[in-house]
Amino acid sequence: MSALETTESHESIARTNENFMRTYKAGDRPGMAGFYTKDAQILPPNENIVTGEEAIRDFYKDMMDMGIKEVVLRTIEFEPIGETAVEVADYKLYGEGSAELDYGKCIIIWKKEHGEWKMHRDMYNSSLPVQG
Amino acid sequence: MSALETTESHESIARTNENFMRTYKAGDRPGMAGFYTKDAQILPPNENIVTGEEAIRDFYKDMMDMGIKEVVLRTIEFEPIGETAVEVADYKLYGEGSAELDYGKCIIIWKKEHGEWKMHRDMYNSSLPVQG
Repeated sequence: MSALETTESHESIARTNENFMRTYKAGDRPGMAGFYTKDAQILPPNENIVTGEEAIRDFYKDMMDMGIKEVVLRTIEFEPIGETAVEVADYKLYGEGSAELDYGKCIIIWKKEHGEWKMHRDMYNSSLPVQG
Repeated sequence: MSALETTESHESIARTNENFMRTYKAGDRPGMAGFYTKDAQILPPNENIVTGEEAIRDFYKDMMDMGIKEVVLRTIEFEPIGETAVEVADYKLYGEGSAELDYGKCIIIWKKEHGEWKMHRDMYNSSLPVQG
């Protein structure tokens, strides 16, 4: 993969991440599923694996209904390998009045689907200590 | 990547996983770090990212000291892409008398380092509901 292709992949995914954060903040539940491949999976803590479009839509609906108003992602590391890219990022979750509710990290496996980068496997966990 | 190379990578990583489980069960704390690349990271739940050999050794020491006697990994999905491989697996943790303590899933990013597959990014989270 050329340096140019690497830069293009990185920029394209950075734009998608910006768009992802904006879509979440707007409360656009069905829009969230559009960031994922057709057979994508989210691997959330304390839940089973979430598979496919309908389940992903419900996952974000639940998250919004729980009072999580904003998701902020920051890429730590990014490596495109052909039609796949591996991203390590950290995240923060904010509630009503910009209260910080949680922070942690994620690994996202991206796939190019019909020329567009989509999230294919999306795993995260909190860095906060276990609540007693 | 040829079908033969894919099969070889898969078999090689399957053997490494077997060895990993055996090494853990034997309580071989320093041995555990040998499964990781030089600049590897573990991304555990409810903790910050664990980076490098010494921190990884301490991580496994703590895990063994906590009474986790056995780790069982089962590959769900495996995709080698050149010198990188993405594995999705599930795990179970057992304590004294084979009591099941936890189960969940992981994403492991493998890298070929000096001809050997090593874990480079290793993230997991529990599928058990949050303990109240």
